[in-house]
Amino acid sequence: MSHEIAPQTLWTGDYYNEGAGKEGLFDKLKEECGVFGVFGHPDASSLSYYGLHALQHRGEESAGICVSDGEEFRYHRGMGLVKEVFDKDMLSSLSGSISIGHVRYSTSGDSKLTNAQPLIFKYRAGDLAVATNGNIVNAPKIRRELEESGSIFQTTSDTEVIAHLIARSSKDLVEAAKDAFNRIVGGYAFLIMTNEKLLVASDPHGLRPLSMAKLGDAYIFASETCAFETIGAEFVRDIEPGELLVLDREGLHEGRFDEKKHRKALCAMEYIYFARPDSDMNGSNQHAARKRMGSRMALESFVDADIVTGVPDSSISAAIGYAEQTGIPYELGLIKNKYTGRTFIQPSQELREQGVKMKLSAVRRVVEGQRVVMIDDSIVRGTTSRRIVNLLREAGATEVHVRITSPPFKNPCFYGIDTPDRRELIASSRSIEEICREINADSLAFLSPEGLITAIAGHNAEDHKGGLCMACFDNDYPTRLDFDGEEKFGCSC
Amino acid sequence: MSHEIAPQTLWTGDYYNEGAGKEGLFDKLKEECGVFGVFGHPDASSLSYYGLHALQHRGEESAGICVSDGEEFRYHRGMGLVKEVFDKDMLSSLSGSISIGHVRYSTSGDSKLTNAQPLIFKYRAGDLAVATNGNIVNAPKIRRELEESGSIFQTTSDTEVIAHLIARSSKDLVEAAKDAFNRIVGGYAFLIMTNEKLLVASDPHGLRPLSMAKLGDAYIFASETCAFETIGAEFVRDIEPGELLVLDREGLHEGRFDEKKHRKALCAMEYIYFARPDSDMNGSNQHAARKRMGSRMALESFVDADIVTGVPDSSISAAIGYAEQTGIPYELGLIKNKYTGRTFIQPSQELREQGVKMKLSAVRRVVEGQRVVMIDDSIVRGTTSRRIVNLLREAGATEVHVRITSPPFKNPCFYGIDTPDRRELIASSRSIEEICREINADSLAFLSPEGLITAIAGHNAEDHKGGLCMACFDNDYPTRLDFDGEEKFGCSC
Amino acid sequence: MSHEIAPQTLWTGDYYNEGAGKEGLFDKLKEECGVFGVFGHPDASSLSYYGLHALQHRGEESAGICVSDGEEFRYHRGMGLVKEVFDKDMLSSLSGSISIGHVRYSTSGDSKLTNAQPLIFKYRAGDLAVATNGNIVNAPKIRRELEESGSIFQTTSDTEVIAHLIARSSKDLVEAAKDAFNRIVGGYAFLIMTNEKLLVASDPHGLRPLSMAKLGDAYIFASETCAFETIGAEFVRDIEPGELLVLDREGLHEGRFDEKKHRKALCAMEYIYFARPDSDMNGSNQHAARKRMGSRMALESFVDADIVTGVPDSSISAAIGYAEQTGIPYELGLIKNKYTGRTFIQPSQELREQGVKMKLSAVRRVVEGQRVVMIDDSIVRGTTSRRIVNLLREAGATEVHVRITSPPFKNPCFYGIDTPDRRELIASSRSIEEICREINADSLAFLSPEGLITAIAGHNAEDHKGGLCMACFDNDYPTRLDFDGEEKFGCSC
Amino acid sequence: MSHEIAPQTLWTGDYYNEGAGKEGLFDKLKEECGVFGVFGHPDASSLSYYGLHALQHRGEESAGICVSDGEEFRYHRGMGLVKEVFDKDMLSSLSGSISIGHVRYSTSGDSKLTNAQPLIFKYRAGDLAVATNGNIVNAPKIRRELEESGSIFQTTSDTEVIAHLIARSSKDLVEAAKDAFNRIVGGYAFLIMTNEKLLVASDPHGLRPLSMAKLGDAYIFASETCAFETIGAEFVRDIEPGELLVLDREGLHEGRFDEKKHRKALCAMEYIYFARPDSDMNGSNQHAARKRMGSRMALESFVDADIVTGVPDSSISAAIGYAEQTGIPYELGLIKNKYTGRTFIQPSQELREQGVKMKLSAVRRVVEGQRVVMIDDSIVRGTTSRRIVNLLREAGATEVHVRITSPPFKNPCFYGIDTPDRRELIASSRSIEEICREINADSLAFLSPEGLITAIAGHNAEDHKGGLCMACFDNDYPTRLDFDGEEKFGCSC
Repeated sequence: MSHEIAPQTLWTGDYYNEGAGKEGLFDKLKEECGVFGVFGHPDASSLSYYGLHALQHRGEESAGICVSDGEEFRYHRGMGLVKEVFDKDMLSSLSGSISIGHVRYSTSGDSKLTNAQPLIFKYRAGDLAVATNGNIVNAPKIRRELEESGSIFQTTSDTEVIAHLIARSSKDLVEAAKDAFNRIVGGYAFLIMTNEKLLVASDPHGLRPLSMAKLGDAYIFASETCAFETIGAEFVRDIEPGELLVLDREGLHEGRFDEKKHRKALCAMEYIYFARPDSDMNGSNQHAARKRMGSRMALESFVDADIVTGVPDSSISAAIGYAEQTGIPYELGLIKNKYTGRTFIQPSQELREQGVKMKLSAVRRVVEGQRVVMIDDSIVRGTTSRRIVNLLREAGATEVHVRITSPPFKNPCFYGIDTPDRRELIASSRSIEEICREINADSLAFLSPEGLITAIAGHNAEDHKGGLCMACFDNDYPTRLDFDGEEKFGCSC
Repeated sequence: MSHEIAPQTLWTGDYYNEGAGKEGLFDKLKEECGVFGVFGHPDASSLSYYGLHALQHRGEESAGICVSDGEEFRYHRGMGLVKEVFDKDMLSSLSGSISIGHVRYSTSGDSKLTNAQPLIFKYRAGDLAVATNGNIVNAPKIRRELEESGSIFQTTSDTEVIAHLIARSSKDLVEAAKDAFNRIVGGYAFLIMTNEKLLVASDPHGLRPLSMAKLGDAYIFASETCAFETIGAEFVRDIEPGELLVLDREGLHEGRFDEKKHRKALCAMEYIYFARPDSDMNGSNQHAARKRMGSRMALESFVDADIVTGVPDSSISAAIGYAEQTGIPYELGLIKNKYTGRTFIQPSQELREQGVKMKLSAVRRVVEGQRVVMIDDSIVRGTTSRRIVNLLREAGATEVHVRITSPPFKNPCFYGIDTPDRRELIASSRSIEEICREINADSLAFLSPEGLITAIAGHNAEDHKGGLCMACFDNDYPTRLDFDGEEKFGCSC
Repeated sequence: MSHEIAPQTLWTGDYYNEGAGKEGLFDKLKEECGVFGVFGHPDASSLSYYGLHALQHRGEESAGICVSDGEEFRYHRGMGLVKEVFDKDMLSSLSGSISIGHVRYSTSGDSKLTNAQPLIFKYRAGDLAVATNGNIVNAPKIRRELEESGSIFQTTSDTEVIAHLIARSSKDLVEAAKDAFNRIVGGYAFLIMTNEKLLVASDPHGLRPLSMAKLGDAYIFASETCAFETIGAEFVRDIEPGELLVLDREGLHEGRFDEKKHRKALCAMEYIYFARPDSDMNGSNQHAARKRMGSRMALESFVDADIVTGVPDSSISAAIGYAEQTGIPYELGLIKNKYTGRTFIQPSQELREQGVKMKLSAVRRVVEGQRVVMIDDSIVRGTTSRRIVNLLREAGATEVHVRITSPPFKNPCFYGIDTPDRRELIASSRSIEEICREINADSLAFLSPEGLITAIAGHNAEDHKGGLCMACFDNDYPTRLDFDGEEKFGCSC
Repeated sequence: MSHEIAPQTLWTGDYYNEGAGKEGLFDKLKEECGVFGVFGHPDASSLSYYGLHALQHRGEESAGICVSDGEEFRYHRGMGLVKEVFDKDMLSSLSGSISIGHVRYSTSGDSKLTNAQPLIFKYRAGDLAVATNGNIVNAPKIRRELEESGSIFQTTSDTEVIAHLIARSSKDLVEAAKDAFNRIVGGYAFLIMTNEKLLVASDPHGLRPLSMAKLGDAYIFASETCAFETIGAEFVRDIEPGELLVLDREGLHEGRFDEKKHRKALCAMEYIYFARPDSDMNGSNQHAARKRMGSRMALESFVDADIVTGVPDSSISAAIGYAEQTGIPYELGLIKNKYTGRTFIQPSQELREQGVKMKLSAVRRVVEGQRVVMIDDSIVRGTTSRRIVNLLREAGATEVHVRITSPPFKNPCFYGIDTPDRRELIASSRSIEEICREINADSLAFLSPEGLITAIAGHNAEDHKGGLCMACFDNDYPTRLDFDGEEKFGCSC
């Protein structure tokens, strides 16, 4: 193994991940990656900057943009937020009308500049850039085969496998890409560009979100629709499972790499936690879906209390839904410091014991003497939940009733979400009563799978399971899992 | 006049103020400054770091901390957020048990490192550091007198006047400070430190907030109570108007510099807009007060609609109050990008015309086809309101009813809030109907002064006007305004 | 083609190359690259830092170090000087006992982080890092063949070819490397490391310098011996042409990849211009060799004058030799500003026309009214020489006699020195008289090839041409030049 | 006392002073400061940038420029080299035609941004900026008096005293400045600017160098003439002792603040060590003067040897003079790494013991087996000399004869050169024989005072002691030293 040491990581002292802080204080799932593509706009890099900025919540670790003016690639990648990686001069030097961009989280230990996407390759037919969100289940196996026949790799990213498969093929780019996508198994959204073309693909089950919009004559692609709104582009449609779109001088060529029709299985956690509340997926707004999860939760597991509060930011919508349904007032019982970020100095253990908070505080005057319903989206290891319940109790809450707007999270994700080992998932081995005790709550309830599906897809969803992947809840993985001996968790992008 | 050119301002290209962006797109009032003091804690600088971080919303332009170990000062000030100005090595080099810290906004054109506080002086009796929030109305006059008798100034900050008055006095520090406070007129919270003492003062009307807490044996002072919660300190009480507290080896000496009892007049805008929702002032929680403003608004100016939405972040609480009172569902009709910040590259005019949003977007799927009640806290010039109403309309809202949870803002503030010239205040010269037309709303209503006072202070508030300064609404300034010919707006800190 | 945009290049505005500035003001040959290797020392990265620092003159554009602790690679590369790329924390994080490091110049247009060495690869047998100084003449041809059979490349550097050839081989590392070196044609010094081994190779003619030293039990390798002195290591010997050394747990294994004995042909420009004056090559000190060039020049082309001056820094030694031989006093007629560097802001055209100097000035009081002998090491395009002659004339020199301590530079280098196209080389198409007129000198003389060989290798040098490559002077290239259609100039490292 | 903590100082780890490194390895005298002024040129800030760059050797710690466009000041100051403190945008924002600039060293412990010059003040009559090189002997006394009557100070710099004296005066600026200069005692070159005027003054003995030039119609002032050559300005004359020049719209007004004619006493160390070799002072070129010191030394203390070498950079000229006079060849026995700088990571004690060199190396192949004459300019504590002698011995020198081109340095400087306490000056308490033993030399000789005067001023110098201050050698201080109880060493600028 090899580690590139990035200077920022070192001198900022304490690296900070929104939602996944140090020392187990926060154990939220890490968000994955976001991709953004432009075809046919003279300001491709600027649009990418604003588009990636809108997708920033999907990956705060690195950012990159590659553009082509039809002749050659210009690209820049760096560690940090979009606004930190790019400055004005940089952006204006990235001239061209085709571009792909990427924001990224990584699994722990692999935080390195080399893995920052888009990945850039030179091969027989010229330049190739690749950006992806998701995970290739059989990448280690393919990689081993490629290495056996002499391939060398620059990154630990599975994304590189696609480039090798394309370069090894004697077919043209589009046919080679089709073969490559048929060879890999997983959940992914892929953007691939050359100096002439942009290729856009979604895995056969549509596990990861990817949508298309138009801005004038230009085509825009993004992991979430919020990026379209930001740049003033008009939403056209979601990319279908198994689709391979090709854009070139003649325009958009629709097509598929996989002719079979598989069960649609979009990641349920996108609705529960990852996506921005103003994004739409499958025609449904995320904020609205979360409010419905809260309402449904109120019906499934009502408890009498004085106030409802949500764990910011992701559970605010659900908490409002719960409050509206029950008539219990929604209050600001917990508050997050919005200025916390990568260069923030974490408090020492000693100061933490004296009560210095990291970024989440309970609002004493709101919760003191109150019976609190605390809405959260998920419980992973249980440590964060316990910590927040205790924050509320220390601030004077007399009762804390925890309501989780998803079913118990029991199984790792193999499609791009960084989940801990199954043994660390508190719900994989404990009953709800046990979890309730561990997190020190007065009561605990999870949303039922049916409740979740109904809240997201409506009562009469035609698709199996509402078109959702619920594997982390029900162990029903939509793809085969030919791991070749080693389980691989997390995001390969 | 002289301008220090700060490197950050230049190479980041576009400086960004939360709430007060460039080119008139956002015309919110600028928040003022925040102060934080520690006496008697070995980790004074770390506590200040976390405390100032909690007060960051009060000033994003510069930050500074001065500490003393009883022998000498160590200090650092810089342009930017607390987390940008300080790194770990820096913080650990600031050893000592007495400290004062400051976060700052400045009036336009005066954005310079030299003015960053705490200001440090050397005088007859040794070292002196001063941090303040507020404005001294007669500072220009006093300054002119001091200059006439040979004083030289390093900054354009009025805060420096206090140091000169103290240095010119032949009395001891505390007596000299008393004289100085009796000489100045304005609204302020002052922290002054030497190598042995910490002095804490609030103006005779208590215009600016300042509270005291204890952390073990140490005393903590902060502009808002949210800073106490962050560091685990226990709230003791608010500093009273006209108080001058002195802390030294023997502990806390309570006292007053002004024996007269004046009308209490805490800035109403702190409740309406500035303070963090989890802060308490005068025993009342800000989020709760804002919810009551929203409820009261619902009673005063109900309108039938499909959804209620608040302008983030400051009007969310009031919007929830309005929704709870009326039963109209609260929805996420507007969303702010939380990653926007100082180094963010502003879109070009061309891109903006193409629809690239800066930081606020309307959520199409939420507002499309809906009659929207849009709650905001204030209207200054009207340009922002017009822009947001139009965002909602472009996203498909059929009606937009604007409800402002404060009375019309007609008069400039002389006590530390950066307000534009009276002529630029839209409410100073236009009727509500005219404003409604200008901002392109279907209807517009402001909260009544009585409604505001009741929401903040309750129905039976004993103090005149609920103990609030309402001058920006009713032109009734609590102090004399001896400007000596030149009006001075904004914050002198 | 693709360009990675490096942030430093952009925001510093004007990139500066020592000896090869912007806008044709300086047209010195660009130095090439430097390599430094450690095997068996616990502080490998720190030694590399100091060693590369001593080799900094060989490449100011990027720097990189890769270390292994026997388990995994840790590496960091960046744009800029060694001291800019590495900080203390970074360096201490690079723990391990095997390391290779690199400093680099690049040919114009290819200034990118991606090409910064050491290059790191992952292949069948694990991790591989490569650092090189020199150029592979047939790299484009091999690369094309590799691409045809499906290889993808990350860089435009020829160095990557070696890694592919090794990865494609089914033999073990050492045998695969031998095959690879036999396949490539060129002038190079190679350092290759894995987690267990260090491989050290010099091309069959020894075109580029590479020496070995010991520091306790550890082995040290460097492009120049000055790096040994800096770290206190004891010089052992130069690496022989065609050698392939292998270091592993059992120690040093001497061997050759090419059993044939070829003509030794070390680059003459190393003596004339590139190497640090305190380095030794082939047992001869560079400063001493340059003094002998100056002395010989005095014998070959004496001219009566009042003072001798050298163009700093590289021609000072030769100027002193000329002065000692002739008795004409050596004076400081030209001075270079030592603080100039990468972030230095170049004067505008307007200011330059007003007389603002970039980095070289004539010393008026020294040269005024004097007949000056100006010693320089080479003339490439002639523009720099003309400029310096004019500087001296403007400062009052009555005569300027230029003496160049090398023969006319007529032919491009294919072994690692960045030379312009043959048509731009002034000596390729002009007589000495014509050059003299163009550079505005009163007289001009070049050192004879025999004079150069004698000054470097002594009167009785056994090796053909004193063991030197003189191709840039006499067009006699020691290797075949199978360019496959496209001439490639400059350094491939 | 108070310390501003500058971020650069902290995160670069090891601050580096050219000539005065950490841990006693180098104990050269610290250079002082440099000033540069422009009156009447539209590109005043750019000229200042290049001028200060040429003066960089006089102060590497901080740099600053203040310009006026006739209306207001714009200024920027920062820690580091000129090229580090200013970037292109910064420079172009500093528009105006009057400017003063400063580069600075500081005495230990006072390395802070606050003290960076030019100092900027606001007083009765407007803006005032001050830049100085030198030291005010009675500044502490005046400061105490000012503080007693209520003045507050921002810096620990004596320069601030002048601003207070001017501000306290009821006279106009020029008269007030005259009074102020008559009140202070010391050695100094002062530049003072307002929005209309530039004032230029030299102390009554002319202890610090200051010269005037013209660039078109503009006037230029600089500590050394090398700055004129750099910007293409034409030298006019040196500023005379006791002169006060005033530049305003009407042009240059010549005049004096002190009508008495005092003994001229320019700092001899400027010739020996500080000034750039291409600068002229009193009509004499520094390189030439140093060569004459070397020649004279050869006559006074000849020793038979094989080679002459100079300690770089300052003693190269003298070594060449010694070599020319004796016929012993000048060789490069010692070499300095030109890339070392502020951010360079110092080797650990352990690595240093293993032989890692900081920045100076002996060239083994040059000195091995040779009898070496080592020329240096001065001996302060003796530690550096001992270290260099040992470097030469370790590299194989058989004999090392040290020749110092100045008399023994016995007395502290009170006029701007940072000298250690008298007890630390090795020559103050030891005989030449004792010093010779301590520095481990085979022989040691110092230049005689007469020899020094002759080398600098010629055989028939009219002025007393050749117009030089030789106090550090002969204890004859040209001014009174009314220290008021506390000795003050070093530079107050």
